[in-house]
Amino acid sequence: MTRYFQREIQELKKKLLHLAATVEESLRTAIRAVTERDTTLAVEVVNRDNEIDQMEVELEEDCLKTLALHQPVAIDLRFLVAVLKINNDLERIGDLAVNIAKRTHILARTSNTDIPFDLPGMLQLAIEMVKRAVDALIEMDATSAGQVCCDDDDLDDRHRAAYSAVEQRIIERPEEAGYYITLLGISRNLERIGDHATNIAEDVMYMVDGEIVRHRGKDLNP
Amino acid sequence: MTRYFQREIQELKKKLLHLAATVEESLRTAIRAVTERDTTLAVEVVNRDNEIDQMEVELEEDCLKTLALHQPVAIDLRFLVAVLKINNDLERIGDLAVNIAKRTHILARTSNTDIPFDLPGMLQLAIEMVKRAVDALIEMDATSAGQVCCDDDDLDDRHRAAYSAVEQRIIERPEEAGYYITLLGISRNLERIGDHATNIAEDVMYMVDGEIVRHRGKDLNP
Repeated sequence: MTRYFQREIQELKKKLLHLAATVEESLRTAIRAVTERDTTLAVEVVNRDNEIDQMEVELEEDCLKTLALHQPVAIDLRFLVAVLKINNDLERIGDLAVNIAKRTHILARTSNTDIPFDLPGMLQLAIEMVKRAVDALIEMDATSAGQVCCDDDDLDDRHRAAYSAVEQRIIERPEEAGYYITLLGISRNLERIGDHATNIAEDVMYMVDGEIVRHRGKDLNP
Repeated sequence: MTRYFQREIQELKKKLLHLAATVEESLRTAIRAVTERDTTLAVEVVNRDNEIDQMEVELEEDCLKTLALHQPVAIDLRFLVAVLKINNDLERIGDLAVNIAKRTHILARTSNTDIPFDLPGMLQLAIEMVKRAVDALIEMDATSAGQVCCDDDDLDDRHRAAYSAVEQRIIERPEEAGYYITLLGISRNLERIGDHATNIAEDVMYMVDGEIVRHRGKDLNP
């Protein structure tokens, strides 16, 4: 590996970390927006999404340039392909944060504060998964990446529980159907964030071990 | 481009087309399963998903081998990266077909046949988008790919209309909340399939024109 190539890889890692931090911040803000029903925060998340999109496009272009210029093989090639894919997953997590934030406007219009499932717990778990997956990439730590996949089973279970709880509530209080469907939407977006964190973790495991672990024990969701 | 490289590219195209055809078939079967409430067809979709997963893993390995061996540049490099990403989108469309199929079991338990939005129209549009996106890739046709993005706006509008219609129905018939939430889930899965078809189309445009068109006029969904 030439010194020049090494420097480019470091630069890519730095940009990926910066993207991950921005996405994480967006997700945290989205979560604050819905829990505090603060529409100003929600608008902030929507506005920040352009920045995330731009970062994704730039990082992809950088990866392609590095691929074309240095034509790496083995672990270096796998690293670059993983960055391309993880870049994509992070951008989608940003989109899902926007989806969550946009629900603030609906929540802000109602005085109903009943949340019949553990939303704060789900929020916390989703954020931890994203953080752990990105850290695993930077540290090239397959064990930590494996933990993300276990957490995803937990998040899926919680989403299923949320689904049942919401259905029950709608039967009891049909006039609040819109509100409860909105809550379910937040739960589903968190569950999808967990899926993207799992994609990232699986790419890290592949990169480190050279073995594709995707689709093992896959469990799709309602 | 060496003759050997050309042959590998042809082989990758063939495998990608085969994957696309399998995913399309899975989607058609899922749609028949829910419209005819046929749980045997639903099980067929779930079982076929392993095959799709395996095809995705193989195609990714093939792409990486070709990248490492031939170290292509310019349009050839962009083609390979596009195949890697499109491969991923197709596999996810397969997952969404499974999500749709799994709802058959819920629908089969009820005698309610009311569908308060144009589900057949949405199904048709989603399938056409996937087909057109894959054809655009094979033909390297950026104009046709552009059409997919327009269709996605239409599909998004239809999903929004479905959301309102379902919410209204739940208020009128709360005891049927589970049934209507299931219908909304099918609509949402179709909307996500549209997003993946759009991703594919955007990658085709990028490959042909060398310009990233992602995120232009992006409109996120409820």
